[in-house]
Amino acid sequence: MNWREIEEHVARALAEDVGIGDVTTQCIVSDDARGRAVVVAREAGVVAGLPLVELVYGRLDGRVQVARLVQEGSAVSVGCRVAVLVGPTRALLSGERVALNYLQYLSGIATRTAALVGAVHGTRARIVDTRKTVPGLRALAKYAVRQGGGTNHRFGLFDGVLIKDNHIAASGGVREAVCRARAVASHLLRIEVEADSLAQVREALDAGADVILLDNMGPDQLREAVELCRGRARTEASGGITAQNIRAVAETGVDLISVGALTHSVTALDLGLDWEPAEACPERNPAAG
Amino acid sequence: MNWREIEEHVARALAEDVGIGDVTTQCIVSDDARGRAVVVAREAGVVAGLPLVELVYGRLDGRVQVARLVQEGSAVSVGCRVAVLVGPTRALLSGERVALNYLQYLSGIATRTAALVGAVHGTRARIVDTRKTVPGLRALAKYAVRQGGGTNHRFGLFDGVLIKDNHIAASGGVREAVCRARAVASHLLRIEVEADSLAQVREALDAGADVILLDNMGPDQLREAVELCRGRARTEASGGITAQNIRAVAETGVDLISVGALTHSVTALDLGLDWEPAEACPERNPAAG
Amino acid sequence: MNWREIEEHVARALAEDVGIGDVTTQCIVSDDARGRAVVVAREAGVVAGLPLVELVYGRLDGRVQVARLVQEGSAVSVGCRVAVLVGPTRALLSGERVALNYLQYLSGIATRTAALVGAVHGTRARIVDTRKTVPGLRALAKYAVRQGGGTNHRFGLFDGVLIKDNHIAASGGVREAVCRARAVASHLLRIEVEADSLAQVREALDAGADVILLDNMGPDQLREAVELCRGRARTEASGGITAQNIRAVAETGVDLISVGALTHSVTALDLGLDWEPAEACPERNPAAG
Amino acid sequence: MNWREIEEHVARALAEDVGIGDVTTQCIVSDDARGRAVVVAREAGVVAGLPLVELVYGRLDGRVQVARLVQEGSAVSVGCRVAVLVGPTRALLSGERVALNYLQYLSGIATRTAALVGAVHGTRARIVDTRKTVPGLRALAKYAVRQGGGTNHRFGLFDGVLIKDNHIAASGGVREAVCRARAVASHLLRIEVEADSLAQVREALDAGADVILLDNMGPDQLREAVELCRGRARTEASGGITAQNIRAVAETGVDLISVGALTHSVTALDLGLDWEPAEACPERNPAAG
Amino acid sequence: MNWREIEEHVARALAEDVGIGDVTTQCIVSDDARGRAVVVAREAGVVAGLPLVELVYGRLDGRVQVARLVQEGSAVSVGCRVAVLVGPTRALLSGERVALNYLQYLSGIATRTAALVGAVHGTRARIVDTRKTVPGLRALAKYAVRQGGGTNHRFGLFDGVLIKDNHIAASGGVREAVCRARAVASHLLRIEVEADSLAQVREALDAGADVILLDNMGPDQLREAVELCRGRARTEASGGITAQNIRAVAETGVDLISVGALTHSVTALDLGLDWEPAEACPERNPAAG
Amino acid sequence: MNWREIEEHVARALAEDVGIGDVTTQCIVSDDARGRAVVVAREAGVVAGLPLVELVYGRLDGRVQVARLVQEGSAVSVGCRVAVLVGPTRALLSGERVALNYLQYLSGIATRTAALVGAVHGTRARIVDTRKTVPGLRALAKYAVRQGGGTNHRFGLFDGVLIKDNHIAASGGVREAVCRARAVASHLLRIEVEADSLAQVREALDAGADVILLDNMGPDQLREAVELCRGRARTEASGGITAQNIRAVAETGVDLISVGALTHSVTALDLGLDWEPAEACPERNPAAG
Repeated sequence: MNWREIEEHVARALAEDVGIGDVTTQCIVSDDARGRAVVVAREAGVVAGLPLVELVYGRLDGRVQVARLVQEGSAVSVGCRVAVLVGPTRALLSGERVALNYLQYLSGIATRTAALVGAVHGTRARIVDTRKTVPGLRALAKYAVRQGGGTNHRFGLFDGVLIKDNHIAASGGVREAVCRARAVASHLLRIEVEADSLAQVREALDAGADVILLDNMGPDQLREAVELCRGRARTEASGGITAQNIRAVAETGVDLISVGALTHSVTALDLGLDWEPAEACPERNPAAG
Repeated sequence: MNWREIEEHVARALAEDVGIGDVTTQCIVSDDARGRAVVVAREAGVVAGLPLVELVYGRLDGRVQVARLVQEGSAVSVGCRVAVLVGPTRALLSGERVALNYLQYLSGIATRTAALVGAVHGTRARIVDTRKTVPGLRALAKYAVRQGGGTNHRFGLFDGVLIKDNHIAASGGVREAVCRARAVASHLLRIEVEADSLAQVREALDAGADVILLDNMGPDQLREAVELCRGRARTEASGGITAQNIRAVAETGVDLISVGALTHSVTALDLGLDWEPAEACPERNPAAG
Repeated sequence: MNWREIEEHVARALAEDVGIGDVTTQCIVSDDARGRAVVVAREAGVVAGLPLVELVYGRLDGRVQVARLVQEGSAVSVGCRVAVLVGPTRALLSGERVALNYLQYLSGIATRTAALVGAVHGTRARIVDTRKTVPGLRALAKYAVRQGGGTNHRFGLFDGVLIKDNHIAASGGVREAVCRARAVASHLLRIEVEADSLAQVREALDAGADVILLDNMGPDQLREAVELCRGRARTEASGGITAQNIRAVAETGVDLISVGALTHSVTALDLGLDWEPAEACPERNPAAG
Repeated sequence: MNWREIEEHVARALAEDVGIGDVTTQCIVSDDARGRAVVVAREAGVVAGLPLVELVYGRLDGRVQVARLVQEGSAVSVGCRVAVLVGPTRALLSGERVALNYLQYLSGIATRTAALVGAVHGTRARIVDTRKTVPGLRALAKYAVRQGGGTNHRFGLFDGVLIKDNHIAASGGVREAVCRARAVASHLLRIEVEADSLAQVREALDAGADVILLDNMGPDQLREAVELCRGRARTEASGGITAQNIRAVAETGVDLISVGALTHSVTALDLGLDWEPAEACPERNPAAG
Repeated sequence: MNWREIEEHVARALAEDVGIGDVTTQCIVSDDARGRAVVVAREAGVVAGLPLVELVYGRLDGRVQVARLVQEGSAVSVGCRVAVLVGPTRALLSGERVALNYLQYLSGIATRTAALVGAVHGTRARIVDTRKTVPGLRALAKYAVRQGGGTNHRFGLFDGVLIKDNHIAASGGVREAVCRARAVASHLLRIEVEADSLAQVREALDAGADVILLDNMGPDQLREAVELCRGRARTEASGGITAQNIRAVAETGVDLISVGALTHSVTALDLGLDWEPAEACPERNPAAG
Repeated sequence: MNWREIEEHVARALAEDVGIGDVTTQCIVSDDARGRAVVVAREAGVVAGLPLVELVYGRLDGRVQVARLVQEGSAVSVGCRVAVLVGPTRALLSGERVALNYLQYLSGIATRTAALVGAVHGTRARIVDTRKTVPGLRALAKYAVRQGGGTNHRFGLFDGVLIKDNHIAASGGVREAVCRARAVASHLLRIEVEADSLAQVREALDAGADVILLDNMGPDQLREAVELCRGRARTEASGGITAQNIRAVAETGVDLISVGALTHSVTALDLGLDWEPAEACPERNPAAG
């Protein structure tokens, strides 16, 4: 993560929610009240986003202490205490929603990623994400994928060459497209080519593609494509992947399986904030804050 | 929508994806190629986000023409042509993912909202959103809720007073909390109080709350609470609302039903870009662009 | 106050004044000189803006210590020592003007507000500000109003509904206007309607307005309007309010009196910086800085 | 004026006022309503800020046409029509307050400046401003001074050397201070030295000051100082200048008279917006917009 | 080039130079004067940066027309007319220095690159740049390298894996370092390894490096290294490359030659602005502007 | 230096290089590895830019300690140890290039400046820079000139009046141009006029110029011009200055010699980073960091 951009993201998120001020809290809660709250998992999953919780409170009020009770990226069960927050009640209340919005969203991504990673355990396949992310959230979404055990595909259009149908059509053929990319792109970037059929796989291999994206193929076709590519190019299966069929896809021997739904259709993990008497602070980490 | 902030959102989204440049397209597609593509619905739903598609392409290359084929906020069926894009092929390719990411996400929100609005048709209940939005996307998410026929709750902590358990605890009681809010908050803000039981509903009414948030109550309890509030305060049902039970909740007579999942757990609407021969432009709106 | 935006305001104010550097000080004052200066009131008033003085110096040079000698929002008489600054002479000199510009401007607002608040003492009327603020200074100006004992009206167009003549004309009547606002605006926003005559007051009440803005009415008419609104709507007197007539207005029983001049025509409070021998630091707060 | 910074100022001013949206107008006024309004002077003065009115509406909605009816910097009498605005009613209403806030504030500065410039007519004295400006408004305030016929002193600490008491104290004497400034500052900057007495005037002259700031001197002392400086340095009178005594000060022969109150204590010029039937547009400038 | 960032670069460059205004021009040149000037090469070289000249003037004053007389990236001889500028004299004068600063710097880079590209003509070697760029100028510097016929190495630390001595030391060996990179980095990034000796070349090849950086080797050693890598990895020569020895390096058969001095030590190309009578505009492109 | 802008410069430089992350280091170097490196001069010169090195590492990772081994602005010989860096290996590696890019560039400027300052030693001439700086780097470049013993000319178009040929042409003559500038410009700015011949020098003197820019004159003509200006105006020699002829120019008696190449054609000073065993920290300054 590029820290500076993440900090600006948090700053904008707080501006978005708090705006000119938390009217309710400023009216009702006295400036010197102190409180204590615990982030609790209300369903099982993988936690991602604890650094964001820390950033939210750090920016809102440096006196809030956030102590992690589980490690970032670890699996939690229902009722698990995830983090404890101690500090001025006003800040605890004003930051609650933004902190949970980050944590629930990222944990939702990590949880689904971990489920798919588990489903392909023992095969050679890596689970990778796509560029189908909510605008403005890509770095965070991809971070959450890593916390769930997945691997990142390219971050954007700038750090990888991926030649699709339309690029091929626009350049007059696979061979021509790969050739142009080789001539101009940095020598540190590999070239991946999308293929919808075995014929296209062969064409891409002949053109010198480094990676072949096998789009919307069934297990049998995938297996054949993997065979063709052996020793010549890496393979990535993509399109129509579900929790149900992913194992079968992985067993075809593909190197990578990319899943858009990891990041385009996220179900938030249910995490909540429970308040506790402020005076009792057994878990408080004296070094924190 | 505050246009300036939306434009900056789009600018950041493009920077995030395109970064220092779309390597693939720059290498392969010639600068003077022109193309034509159509946004097509691959599943039924409500379309929201067309202005974002226009902003994305407007910023990327002013020569791209975006012509809407359906109105923003309208329902579409599978195969429906949503918008047509004509312009430099490079720009069409480089902007595709960002444009679709916005459109699929916002249409996903509008689609689910419309389903719930339909489910309560004929009752007095309005479907409202919450502050459980992906950080940085609130204005857009709330805009999509409106396109789906929903109504917006407050935008943030600044444009409404909502007193929850912890505010009450911190101030020594409902009466005290409402009283302090009345004394300090702008006279243009109403005061809403959360209640978990009928006893708390009565307390809030006595304290002078303008709106009562009925948290996690079943239909019977809701009905009773609505009765208590009649003529004294508006009512909002919240917590545990699903597509299955929302009709029953609405029939209790509550004024508002708030649903966090509208925005915290979004399933993207499946929309894609189909390429067409650039020369054939029957639908092109000559006034556009 | 939203801290982040205030910090950016200070940063811009310093950039505006210091620009590429304080030529005079850099040429003449040695880098290791240390000094001591006291902010002194040269006329009586209410002090507001001490946190800004701290921000100015904190950003300019973290080694400057600012110790408050009076509390923010307190009344001071001529000659009163308001704050003491100790630190590098260069920073003290370079920040002087920006710090005083904030302090004098905000104290000017607080002082006039306090005078009007005093004038209505014993009545039910609250003194409120308006949106007639110098562009870019609204949050600070409204903060200063609070320090002077006033209450804030809405912050902008986003946190309150205020229907004026032109809105009514554009919608075809008060009833229609209020009705539309009710249907669309958040249920947490009250609806205020401007009325120039008792007939309009009645119309607004019948339309269901929550607050009536009584525009440019004399005391007798105000009294009658207040009578009409009793138990049905809050009342706000506005227009032509002066230090001379405000008591009479307040005694009509209105809930709020709004005064544009509080913020659109500010007379700076005369505060200056007196230099003292740096070695003598009796008031220096050892915990500060 | 540096156009880019002014545009950002306007953008922030609109964000400050409009925020997430003008709730009232969006609820009540239909999207296709068009209106017409005239800026009218409610008191006599000098108009400054028309470019800001144009920027406000240009940013809010490019379809609003702003036609000036008087020239920037011209004197207007009560009832004078200053500018006419035609366009979408929503935009006209949403931008009204920000546009008027700029116009009233800047016209207030220009009006007072013009009064003082008139008061010294026929003498050699130029009226100049100071750095006592509301933070963030300096470029605009100094622009308004010019519209009122005044001249600008330095813009900040970066474009002029002005040696005050404390600089002298910190460097060990006038001669030493001027000498250091000469050695380090750009050869394109003049050196001005503050003097409180005739003895100090002599010292500054001997040290080679280019300009002498005559601080808080009465007419007789000023006259003597001017005599001393003749042919050796320019003179600037400062401190305690009022509309009453400024003529006497000017007649002492000083080159410049600086007045802090021009910008630190501004009385807004009373300008308002009157609505007219939209269809009648006699004054509309067809080339505008 | 990412257009948005380039525009911001230009905006900052103008702010840096023009600041609060071009005092000289504003004082002396009347607002309605129009002029005409020609950019002329005062020495031979390759022109790069014409889009920047257009951006500078476009931002400063949209009425300035910039017509290119040579193509971007073309070689020019002494006296060659490069571009003609027509428009308000004030804008022409105020933008001159910033426009020329961009043009001279980028043309300086393109010119030196073209010289080296010419020197290796007929060999397989491509001339590539490095990350040794003036901070903030990388995208522009790399753009200029392309205009001179060079190819870009990675843009930053994010779009390529390049393992140097210290990475190897920190990971316990070449094999371990390459292995870790393979496991974590995107499958679209190649892995380059630095080698100072033939032994290290062999080690890197065995570890599976895709590219070998041959650091500071003489022609004989380079030739041997190229031989070792044939069919197994690409080769990049780096370190101590001069105009004198680059041909010999290229003839060893390396794929790439990287030259830090292309961008870290730039000699500006001498280009100037000659003024002409404004009325005579033979070359003016009527479609421009 | 204006600290805030410098910090933003560093932030942009890091974003430019590190972007979404240093892939190589993140893959290969463990998070808890610590290292130690020394900045070493590989050629003789004057060091400028150490504060930038500190800013780069401070922003990247606050745990990196930078201890200076020589003073900013001091001359170093080959092999001289300039600064020692201790901290997390990841941060040391990721920041290396940006830190060195600043240091090498600024030291290159300081080194050349110092050479020219040395060449005119004993004469009255000061070496000054120009506005011919790489866009975005002016403040830093001018800072480096000061470190090398030079003096800064004006920073931009805003802090000095310099009337050139084209200004004169546009205003109808030197006298008219100087007169207009006197009337409008701040009284704290001097007026410099460019002259190409002795006739023009006389004209400028008669018009009342404060400084004369003697453009492209040989030593004899310079000497004559200096004679003409004695006691009436300062003199600045400019154009065609080289290390070879600068002594002769200085001996003509001019006050200032301006050299564009100081900043438009910079040769980076060769400085590198040598890694050392982390455990040995003899020079570590315990107070640093």
